[in-house]
Amino acid sequence: MSIHAIFSFSEDICYICPAKQPDMPQTPSIPKGTRDFGQTETARRNYIFETIKGVFRTFGYSQIETPAMENLSTLMGKYGDEGDKLLFRILNSGDAFKDVDPDAMRSADSAAITRAVCEKGLRYDLTVPFARYVVQHRNDLTFPFKRFQIQPVWRADRPQKGRYREFWQCDVDVIGSASQLNELELVQMVDKVFGLLGVRVNVKINNRKVLTGLAEICGFPDKVVDITVAIDKLDKIGLDAVKEEMLGKGLSPEAIAVVEPVLQLSGSTADKISVMRSLMDGGSASRIVSQTGIKGLDELEELFGLVEAAGITSPVEMDLSLARGLNYYTGAIFEVKARDFEIGSICGGGRYDNLTGIFGLPGMSGVGISFGADRIYDVLTGLGLFPDSLSTATTLLFANMGPEETRYIIPIAKSLRDNGISVEIWPEASKLKKQFDYASRKAIPFISITGAEEAARGEINIKNLGTGEQKSFPAADTDAITAFLQA
Amino acid sequence: MSIHAIFSFSEDICYICPAKQPDMPQTPSIPKGTRDFGQTETARRNYIFETIKGVFRTFGYSQIETPAMENLSTLMGKYGDEGDKLLFRILNSGDAFKDVDPDAMRSADSAAITRAVCEKGLRYDLTVPFARYVVQHRNDLTFPFKRFQIQPVWRADRPQKGRYREFWQCDVDVIGSASQLNELELVQMVDKVFGLLGVRVNVKINNRKVLTGLAEICGFPDKVVDITVAIDKLDKIGLDAVKEEMLGKGLSPEAIAVVEPVLQLSGSTADKISVMRSLMDGGSASRIVSQTGIKGLDELEELFGLVEAAGITSPVEMDLSLARGLNYYTGAIFEVKARDFEIGSICGGGRYDNLTGIFGLPGMSGVGISFGADRIYDVLTGLGLFPDSLSTATTLLFANMGPEETRYIIPIAKSLRDNGISVEIWPEASKLKKQFDYASRKAIPFISITGAEEAARGEINIKNLGTGEQKSFPAADTDAITAFLQA
Repeated sequence: MSIHAIFSFSEDICYICPAKQPDMPQTPSIPKGTRDFGQTETARRNYIFETIKGVFRTFGYSQIETPAMENLSTLMGKYGDEGDKLLFRILNSGDAFKDVDPDAMRSADSAAITRAVCEKGLRYDLTVPFARYVVQHRNDLTFPFKRFQIQPVWRADRPQKGRYREFWQCDVDVIGSASQLNELELVQMVDKVFGLLGVRVNVKINNRKVLTGLAEICGFPDKVVDITVAIDKLDKIGLDAVKEEMLGKGLSPEAIAVVEPVLQLSGSTADKISVMRSLMDGGSASRIVSQTGIKGLDELEELFGLVEAAGITSPVEMDLSLARGLNYYTGAIFEVKARDFEIGSICGGGRYDNLTGIFGLPGMSGVGISFGADRIYDVLTGLGLFPDSLSTATTLLFANMGPEETRYIIPIAKSLRDNGISVEIWPEASKLKKQFDYASRKAIPFISITGAEEAARGEINIKNLGTGEQKSFPAADTDAITAFLQA
Repeated sequence: MSIHAIFSFSEDICYICPAKQPDMPQTPSIPKGTRDFGQTETARRNYIFETIKGVFRTFGYSQIETPAMENLSTLMGKYGDEGDKLLFRILNSGDAFKDVDPDAMRSADSAAITRAVCEKGLRYDLTVPFARYVVQHRNDLTFPFKRFQIQPVWRADRPQKGRYREFWQCDVDVIGSASQLNELELVQMVDKVFGLLGVRVNVKINNRKVLTGLAEICGFPDKVVDITVAIDKLDKIGLDAVKEEMLGKGLSPEAIAVVEPVLQLSGSTADKISVMRSLMDGGSASRIVSQTGIKGLDELEELFGLVEAAGITSPVEMDLSLARGLNYYTGAIFEVKARDFEIGSICGGGRYDNLTGIFGLPGMSGVGISFGADRIYDVLTGLGLFPDSLSTATTLLFANMGPEETRYIIPIAKSLRDNGISVEIWPEASKLKKQFDYASRKAIPFISITGAEEAARGEINIKNLGTGEQKSFPAADTDAITAFLQA
């Protein structure tokens, strides 16, 4: 039933036709950067989340949930100054401004007033709440602690295409074990999830310790980020421009000579690791040995050996230019991109040796990845990979032919629902055209027009609206009806 | 592995033993009235939600989601003055206080300042966002619009046992149809959900129009709430006290004489409706006829007829004392209580004829109910009705006997996971006791200790930790292993 039809029954004016509208308040809206998810979008999002969750579970990870609000003392200072500015703050309840320092109030000092009137904020990511959770509940947890978490996060970023102020993160982490088997599991989960979703991906792996080692053998241990970012530009700007950029960042020509063989790495992962190992082991122009770099190569070598043993379907590549999360990762760094759709990374993560140190529990090594639900949604949409069934909420609509027929249908509908079939009964004895329109708008594939005659015979009649096939069944033969509807 | 063990490997000090703790920041915490949900709690909550969702879906309802933040213009004035006070407000980002009226700042006028610096708030329930959603998207929706929504809501209530500042609502509504078939569906869904959860419930149904009619035939049409609340106390305080209370509320002795037969209603629902019908139809002491009351009785009669046709398992009772939501419901009122556990209502709802009128779209009749997830959780806990399997995240733990054995196991674990089995491989070659402890703490039912010998034979060995049964399998026989683990 359209709203128009509803109103043409009950109102003199029609709230749909622009010409007849009465004075109506402005159409309500939602805050910028937030979204409503309708029925198809929610079904599709659930499909992504359920696929991911199913894979996480087969690896022994289980779900936790933390509150949307955290104390600001938990959140502040964890995301840099820029991140602190992007926190959504919640006004204390009650007479919040009563006791604020009058000077701050007079000078409208937003920073000082905010400190006084806001104790809570909305979570900014799932990593800090996870660290807080581990520390707070450490006596109740079994380590290694394997958890996943799928919840919205909020950031007061400027909204733009593909960037929202409320968006979902989907994190899986294990904390309390330094073994590379954990890294392998993450790669396996990525491989399995995208295999199930039908998305071909490339997995890239780097290791922060190798980057640290590279900066060390250059003689510029504080230039890790500059060196990595420069390497990352090789494909785009070429060797000479990369060298120039490094000079511009203050590296010496001798240091750049040390980096140069890394820029020209080629061959298999084993070949690359072998070249890097000789460089780290004093074989570079600087003759400096980096134990950290060697440790990083050991980790990469072990991980790639495990990846091979596991028979990963997706290409997994070592990529020393991978620069994400350099500020907090301490070991492996992961990035996953779709091969057939241009959108940036759809999944990424890495190892952090001291995640819980910020809350007073040092020495806990963990590794995790985060699936980008919004981008994965866009990839599946772009490649047409969502199953059609997700747009179909209802399998069978019983047309309403009157109160007596409806009473006849109610127990039949019940049996079909008990068999897991999604069934609607049209609520009013409206014209059949309206009932068919509803079925068509909701993409309901089957309709039953069961009238007094069928009821007298103890039957129901079902029409497949796609093929036109029509069939009668004994009303009691729930299994035959179910089979027809599921075919 | 306990945290203690982790630290005894890597640190001189132990962060667990109180005596050896270094200076540690205060243990982090979460805002009062909020909760962390651990792995078992989340699994149990998911079990409730998935059960409810599965039932909703078989009735053709599909899920939507709305943002946590709504504009305060959407939320304010919808929940009364008390509700407005309980809204969590979000501070505008940027320099929020810069342009606030200096007078308001000087006098620390919380109300005026709040209006100026907060445009958004956290949703307080799912009903107002649903009404906003229907109006905002009315041109894209198919009516009758059947939706469900399961999301947290936030209220700045004083936290106390069983009352939280963040809690989950689970609402199912249909809007755009006045048919009693919709009421029936809600009763059917309640019956089915609690049947699946194993909770025996009583369903009580009232109708606001009958209460309005009762107040009308009393000659006190504005005393609907007072009369209903007084009737509700009959069981507790007795007939004389109820009469006295009504006198105290300003009803006349003549009016109370009209109510008295209602207080003494007995017999079947049909009997009760018949008595009420004669009262509404001019048969009361006042001789007043209430068309509204008659309409309400028509609705109740139709609904109870449908309930009978549908074969509802739970007792469904007409209860004229049911007073919930009297301020907004206009037709049916529902309340569901557990029969074997004392906790108040665990589900309730009703019909509202003008839900979207507040957003400029009048005349839309809807009916819905809300499942109280927290109370249902408490009922299932109290009655021991959660399936044991919900506490078991992992089915099989492969002990780690060394790197070679691990490589042997990795593809076997993969095949089992592909079969849907939840499998972990212990990440380090630790002492077996530690590995068994982990299995025991996580309640993992099967462990495999597959060493070099088994690997040489191409076998794996699995022990059922519950029964002690131990069995060897050819490693390639995934289906036999799966069957053993699922038995």
